[in-house]
Amino acid sequence: MTFEQMWAGIASVGRSAATRGYFRQPYTSAELELRAWFTEECTRRGLDVEADGNGNLVAWWGSGDGAVLTGSHLDSVLDGGAYDGPLGVVSSLAAVDLLRDRGVTPRRPIGIGVFADEEGSRFGIGCLGSQLATGLLAVEDARVMRDRDGRLLEDVMAAAGLEPGLGRAAWLDRVGCYVELHVEQGRNLVDRDAAVGVASGIWPHGRWRFDFDGEANHAGATRMEDRRDPMVTFAQTALVARAEALSSGQRATFGRIEATPNGTNAVPSRVAAWLDARAEDDELLSGLVHTLEQAAADRAGLDGTAVTVTAESLSAAVEFDPALAARIAAPGGWPVIPTQAGHDAGILQTAGIPTAMLFVRNPTGISHSPEEYAGTGDCLAGVEALADTLQELTR
Amino acid sequence: MTFEQMWAGIASVGRSAATRGYFRQPYTSAELELRAWFTEECTRRGLDVEADGNGNLVAWWGSGDGAVLTGSHLDSVLDGGAYDGPLGVVSSLAAVDLLRDRGVTPRRPIGIGVFADEEGSRFGIGCLGSQLATGLLAVEDARVMRDRDGRLLEDVMAAAGLEPGLGRAAWLDRVGCYVELHVEQGRNLVDRDAAVGVASGIWPHGRWRFDFDGEANHAGATRMEDRRDPMVTFAQTALVARAEALSSGQRATFGRIEATPNGTNAVPSRVAAWLDARAEDDELLSGLVHTLEQAAADRAGLDGTAVTVTAESLSAAVEFDPALAARIAAPGGWPVIPTQAGHDAGILQTAGIPTAMLFVRNPTGISHSPEEYAGTGDCLAGVEALADTLQELTR
Repeated sequence: MTFEQMWAGIASVGRSAATRGYFRQPYTSAELELRAWFTEECTRRGLDVEADGNGNLVAWWGSGDGAVLTGSHLDSVLDGGAYDGPLGVVSSLAAVDLLRDRGVTPRRPIGIGVFADEEGSRFGIGCLGSQLATGLLAVEDARVMRDRDGRLLEDVMAAAGLEPGLGRAAWLDRVGCYVELHVEQGRNLVDRDAAVGVASGIWPHGRWRFDFDGEANHAGATRMEDRRDPMVTFAQTALVARAEALSSGQRATFGRIEATPNGTNAVPSRVAAWLDARAEDDELLSGLVHTLEQAAADRAGLDGTAVTVTAESLSAAVEFDPALAARIAAPGGWPVIPTQAGHDAGILQTAGIPTAMLFVRNPTGISHSPEEYAGTGDCLAGVEALADTLQELTR
Repeated sequence: MTFEQMWAGIASVGRSAATRGYFRQPYTSAELELRAWFTEECTRRGLDVEADGNGNLVAWWGSGDGAVLTGSHLDSVLDGGAYDGPLGVVSSLAAVDLLRDRGVTPRRPIGIGVFADEEGSRFGIGCLGSQLATGLLAVEDARVMRDRDGRLLEDVMAAAGLEPGLGRAAWLDRVGCYVELHVEQGRNLVDRDAAVGVASGIWPHGRWRFDFDGEANHAGATRMEDRRDPMVTFAQTALVARAEALSSGQRATFGRIEATPNGTNAVPSRVAAWLDARAEDDELLSGLVHTLEQAAADRAGLDGTAVTVTAESLSAAVEFDPALAARIAAPGGWPVIPTQAGHDAGILQTAGIPTAMLFVRNPTGISHSPEEYAGTGDCLAGVEALADTLQELTR
């Protein structure tokens, strides 16, 4: 079962015929099918698969402590691409095959982890599985989270046939370091003409819910000057977000919005919109968010509306283990580059596990989209880089 | 059964405990309950109730042609108020009671109509029942309309236990003129210190769907300058809509929006938003919409997005029968005022039936909102005005 065969084997799982994008939300039938596929691939290779109570899976080649963990995640954003997540999992399996072809017997165990709900597309918090397994997210906070249909995490897990048991996972104690391979989500490697790169760190990032409150009213009979229209306040805030992030080289996105009552002939009473913001360092990020809060409040004053901002998640800047990054990058001469995207690797590094990431070139930089793509040649270069790395780290 | 008793009797039907607003969408259980209530009130008064195949109901006091029709509608916008629609129906029943108390025997029949789906909250087109009954909307166009869940109008009607038979309704041939009583949806009567007013006409108005198309992408890793974000194009268009309508004294509202995929950490691939626009005359309205289309297209050019505008409905200006309005307004000295809101009365006038409207003062002007309100004293003044009008027109 080559890399290409494995890749083709899961290409249709959770794919929308309409958009060609992927809907692999945690604990949906598509994502459960991928879990079953992973377990089967591991079993075929004689790797023992272990499930923790947080929805994470880990397959072991060898036993004992000080393991080198690799892997990634299998879930996707809504209408996402094929590569973000699954590329790391398929490459991990292919790298094990390559090591075996090379006749390598690792002196430390190798684990392949599949972390649950990395994208946060269901419960609103990214890296849910790794945050629970490392203890960075409190169990009591996870217990009260609900998906868009109002269902609790543990109920969703149980309904999917899993045995929920949230909290610190013992298997992580066996892990000495973590290396996650991932498709790049920008054009850094394209610009540097490199098929593979190593991550230096992750920008701090977070999600803030902006609730704009106004007054529902008739869209025809109410004079413009008598309105308190929260859509207008949102619109101004969205434009300021773009302008501020553009001029400062940071990132600000309003990708999710819900209007109430969302009727064509009514001025909305409320507009809720979610800000995704990222910046080079923690101070710049809090400055950016503060500027947008202030802009929203200023405009709300003009519009007769009110705005409430709630931080839903915040991930501080992550610096990956510099010695590990240098050790991985040196043999191949791969560039060391930052990323603006959150990853389970960032969670494990923050929890004290020396961690590194390998990126595979993305010719368009597009990600979280049906258009997300990486060439087969670059993917195979990624597999080889990962195999080299695992071989080096388990010598 | 007094006006107040009838009003209290339906106050809880379709009301949300959370918002205190009304959800009386066509053919939902709440709206069906109101239909049953209306039929029962009519039967109690010895009025024969007739249903046409378009979902409309009409109750007759007396037989023959040249009838004076009154009535209104029972459906609401999403999270709407108690008065828009039901006030006209309850007042019609109360006016019949008042005429009988006065010992009046009308020389022409009086009809009380309940028109289906006036608000357009389910199938996207307002005044659906009256448009079908008058033949202003083609049956083949209605047959293919779907609600937000993808269900066809006739299927929805049949599932609600009605017998669909779309198209021109014979009962309208018996109608000589129509008088609809309605809560005012602005502050015209407050400014004039009058409890009751008569409508001069309805501003032209319509709904346009704006589809903003961009490119889905990662909200963190994609540089602001590499994005094609349709939310930004929408935001600019919404601000221009407000500014243009405000400066010209017209109306423009974006109350409904749907982002795709609507995920926090993805730049949207598409934002669909519905423009409700109204203006003093047909030319000003088309000018306003053209200006907004142009503004959206200009901004799309900057954002690397594309915008497509589709007219979903357009109602030309309506001038109610001036002689009828004068005849109704004269005895009480009621002001004659325009309205920006669409009504079944506008449809019947357009279809050639001499039509008038009575408005009841709205102290805040708020409508299409849980806050919509009219004082009981003003409502009773409205009932008396309607009774006087029916008495005059059936002499």
